[in-house]
Amino acid sequence: MSQEKWHTMELRIIYKDTDLMGVVYYANYFTFFEKARTEYMRNLGHSYLRLEKEGLFLPVIEASAKYRGNVGYDSLIIIKTRISSISRVTARFDYQVLDDTEKIIITGHTVHAVIDANKKPSRLPEDVKKAILSFQTDLI
Amino acid sequence: MSQEKWHTMELRIIYKDTDLMGVVYYANYFTFFEKARTEYMRNLGHSYLRLEKEGLFLPVIEASAKYRGNVGYDSLIIIKTRISSISRVTARFDYQVLDDTEKIIITGHTVHAVIDANKKPSRLPEDVKKAILSFQTDLI
Amino acid sequence: MSQEKWHTMELRIIYKDTDLMGVVYYANYFTFFEKARTEYMRNLGHSYLRLEKEGLFLPVIEASAKYRGNVGYDSLIIIKTRISSISRVTARFDYQVLDDTEKIIITGHTVHAVIDANKKPSRLPEDVKKAILSFQTDLI
Amino acid sequence: MSQEKWHTMELRIIYKDTDLMGVVYYANYFTFFEKARTEYMRNLGHSYLRLEKEGLFLPVIEASAKYRGNVGYDSLIIIKTRISSISRVTARFDYQVLDDTEKIIITGHTVHAVIDANKKPSRLPEDVKKAILSFQTDLI
Repeated sequence: MSQEKWHTMELRIIYKDTDLMGVVYYANYFTFFEKARTEYMRNLGHSYLRLEKEGLFLPVIEASAKYRGNVGYDSLIIIKTRISSISRVTARFDYQVLDDTEKIIITGHTVHAVIDANKKPSRLPEDVKKAILSFQTDLI
Repeated sequence: MSQEKWHTMELRIIYKDTDLMGVVYYANYFTFFEKARTEYMRNLGHSYLRLEKEGLFLPVIEASAKYRGNVGYDSLIIIKTRISSISRVTARFDYQVLDDTEKIIITGHTVHAVIDANKKPSRLPEDVKKAILSFQTDLI
Repeated sequence: MSQEKWHTMELRIIYKDTDLMGVVYYANYFTFFEKARTEYMRNLGHSYLRLEKEGLFLPVIEASAKYRGNVGYDSLIIIKTRISSISRVTARFDYQVLDDTEKIIITGHTVHAVIDANKKPSRLPEDVKKAILSFQTDLI
Repeated sequence: MSQEKWHTMELRIIYKDTDLMGVVYYANYFTFFEKARTEYMRNLGHSYLRLEKEGLFLPVIEASAKYRGNVGYDSLIIIKTRISSISRVTARFDYQVLDDTEKIIITGHTVHAVIDANKKPSRLPEDVKKAILSFQTDLI
């Protein structure tokens, strides 16, 4: 556990993110997950946009979250992201959301297919895979 | 004023629509406006999807709303829609949002360009224009 | 399986729901799930709003979806909802999203805690539980 | 014009922001405006959260935008914000959205009432007003 490598980003909660309970609406965390994995990829030096330009797409085939806490308006949360597995044609991202006391309030994951423009299963480019493995040294 | 013809639809407020003030987040009314004008068009017998299939698009070039009131969770609101003007290459929709006591709480409008797939200004098909004028008998 | 009882509602996809892939953005299905479970409760004769007025809340503690397909703009989807288990202090909703050929494209579930205004674990009112069991006759 | 003082922030477009036209959904710019005015206030040294804690709220009573262009996925936009007028009980924010070539693609404004917890018209605290005027030297 202590060996896991995570990418970290901050995000500020606005009115739009909240609901009448005064905290973030549950579905919005999946939008935050998108922001987090996009910045994870950019940080590797291979933006998701680049993949798209090469005709590769990573649609979500599974999404899940567990909520142990929540945060209110103007909170500054931390979202930690890692790739926890890559197969030939899928990739899995794990997420942790921390409140401003650095307590983990939400955990989640998304699984993505790798497909080409014709929606056929495809593979991640070798240099992208290499970049992932070089950051995600905890992956075998 | 009393002669104006409006299309009417109902919409139920969910958690997602609200914010920490307990009422609908202001920007969401513009999403409700989209729902309302889509149903207005469908009601004419010419869905917006049909226009798209013919290579016509109606991007918003102006959007505006005035808020005199608001509603909370589970409220059933009424959205009234009319086309208040059509020129050769634009169309304007007006909206009224009524709470469940039928009081007008929000008014707004959107102006749309009519463009083709190459983003060139275009015209509404004659039959669509005819359908609009046959519903919107208050126009001219 | 064939014995399962589901509540059914329809929902029309608008521009707002879609993303640049031309289909519904994955997180939006969790918003659709909220609409569906709200109508499920209303259909039982016990709206979620009523629970709130009695000081009971059902925050999501787990949310999950699997995506086998997707739909585009103006599609009319069907969302099927059932309660698949209730314990003393939690309830689980299952969802199926069907496209307009009635093919299941997405399955998901949410688990909800039952809490009172002080965020203490609480129980569903007896009449609500009775209404659920009388609809959800597949729940033993 | 050249004298106007603007607060500037950047924002990266994600999938969630876009629609099937491949560009940002029109209503989402009003959410971006919220982000922008929140950071404007924080930059003054008086966060909107602080106003709330003192029982002051700034609900939107008017919102408007004009769209001359748009941007697609992963674009880095600039949002410029200024307060263009303050009266005893209202404040008006103006916005400009610039694409990554620094061309203005969208302009807009919001007008806010200043109210207290009982929804009575109220005034901005003197130190907040002073901070605004000291940044917004183009006012008056």
